[in-house]
Amino acid sequence: MEKITSIFSERLLKVNGLILKKMDSSIPLISEIAEYILASGGKRLRPLLALSSARLLNYNGPDKDVCLAAAVELIHTATLLHDDVVDKSNKRRNKKTANEVWGNEPSILVGDFLFSRAFELMVDTNSLEVLKTLSKASCKISEGEMKQLIFQNNINISKTDYINIIKGKTAELFSAACKSGAIISTNDSDEISALETFGKELGISYQLVDDALDYQSENKNFDKSIGDDFKDGKISYPIIISWERSEIEEKNFWKRVIVEQKQTASDLSKAKALINKHQGIKKTYELASLHAEKAINALSIFENSNIKESLIEVANMSLSRLN
Amino acid sequence: MEKITSIFSERLLKVNGLILKKMDSSIPLISEIAEYILASGGKRLRPLLALSSARLLNYNGPDKDVCLAAAVELIHTATLLHDDVVDKSNKRRNKKTANEVWGNEPSILVGDFLFSRAFELMVDTNSLEVLKTLSKASCKISEGEMKQLIFQNNINISKTDYINIIKGKTAELFSAACKSGAIISTNDSDEISALETFGKELGISYQLVDDALDYQSENKNFDKSIGDDFKDGKISYPIIISWERSEIEEKNFWKRVIVEQKQTASDLSKAKALINKHQGIKKTYELASLHAEKAINALSIFENSNIKESLIEVANMSLSRLN
Repeated sequence: MEKITSIFSERLLKVNGLILKKMDSSIPLISEIAEYILASGGKRLRPLLALSSARLLNYNGPDKDVCLAAAVELIHTATLLHDDVVDKSNKRRNKKTANEVWGNEPSILVGDFLFSRAFELMVDTNSLEVLKTLSKASCKISEGEMKQLIFQNNINISKTDYINIIKGKTAELFSAACKSGAIISTNDSDEISALETFGKELGISYQLVDDALDYQSENKNFDKSIGDDFKDGKISYPIIISWERSEIEEKNFWKRVIVEQKQTASDLSKAKALINKHQGIKKTYELASLHAEKAINALSIFENSNIKESLIEVANMSLSRLN
Repeated sequence: MEKITSIFSERLLKVNGLILKKMDSSIPLISEIAEYILASGGKRLRPLLALSSARLLNYNGPDKDVCLAAAVELIHTATLLHDDVVDKSNKRRNKKTANEVWGNEPSILVGDFLFSRAFELMVDTNSLEVLKTLSKASCKISEGEMKQLIFQNNINISKTDYINIIKGKTAELFSAACKSGAIISTNDSDEISALETFGKELGISYQLVDDALDYQSENKNFDKSIGDDFKDGKISYPIIISWERSEIEEKNFWKRVIVEQKQTASDLSKAKALINKHQGIKKTYELASLHAEKAINALSIFENSNIKESLIEVANMSLSRLN
């Protein structure tokens, strides 16, 4: 991430400034909560995707790329606020979640506020195509989250359903960020489509790695606490792999901890051991690599450049978090 | 409401058809919840305001008015879903709320879905001005809801703060519905501004009447259960009036039931009696009348017509619910 972050350091400052401006509200508690969650970090990956896609296509207009990058980050932040309520999470990035500090009610309403502010920013791009792309992505995100909720604790989820969930909850926004960055820069539908694919495949790869990291013991550069998904009974790829290769006794373990959600202190370790036994992390890494490769291949229509290289680096960085 | 509803009966059918189409999702539970809350009724007042504003200005384009009307209803519905979670409501319009039937989590996510669908519909109007108006209104709605949450159980709320809350949570969307209907029909800024004012003043008047109805014993044509606000410790105009005119012992009653929220079965009757003693309903009606009058006056720049008359009728109907 260092390369891309340094290339766009000046743009990112503008994005952060715009985000802060958009957090301003006549209700101080709204600004307080919004700043808390936005300050609690993140790598600004989605804004960087929007900025790089625009730069790759030589965007040289006014600050539409900055509006777009800020809008995408606000959609992401609104989603996090609502997710943490839905998942009853109390920690994110080693800080208390907003719902833990202020309760569910303000988190729901501030999420709505940020979502509306994101739409205001999108309108500022003056592009109906951008608005179409991002409003459609927002629908798909809610559908993904909803599907995840429906399949929670359902150990029999198919790989297809699981991939559809992560396509919705993660890959849609990655994809829309890249596509929108392209839309403000060109009319060439092949180039727009290539960046859309890059974002989608990168998003799938990124989420697969995230899901594997939930069962890795080293917690470096990871946004959540280890074992969060496990505690919530969320099924992810490493579990699906382990489940389909398990014998009866092992299946009973998964049923108890995931379906019935009866967990004891040592169960996370046991889950990790079972996942390793059945190569759950390895298989997840392999699938993530496949999607990262697809992402990188989508960029083949573009000439080599500093920006293209840094996008490829992002795809590789996402994977390397697992090493 | 009969006149306006009959004028637009054909348009409303189209609006309902479009709403149903937009509820369609690959996740059946989303459609199920969305249809449940949309079917549970409402008078489609906001869509009617958008349709009439367009018709008043002789809108004769394709179906942008229908898109707009559907979008406004979806924003309203999304807000209801989230409100019911925030307020922990279990009944609305004599039916169980969605959060009561399916839980908070799906209500939050389906609210987000409807909100995104609303934005998709707005994009279909192809008007950046409409998008600007409605995204700004959405921000103001969240701010109003948040302010209401902050002042919950605070008996010392000023009249100004209370009016600001209802401006945000109710009048903004009424106003944006009218303004957007005007925007798709004309470039005349005086006409757009007149309809914006009509919507805003009507919205304030409408919410004041709603707040008074919460303490009226006859529950005809009223969307909520009698005493809902009271149970939640929500301060509204009738209480503000009663509080400022109360003696010490009466003030202690209000502190107990609203601030400490320690209520017994007979307290709602006692609250009603105190409100009547201090003319809380009468004063609320007077203020609502004043705003209805402002709404009607805003229409004075338009020539007399069937549509103008029916808009005036809506303002009068809103008031007459208190009789």
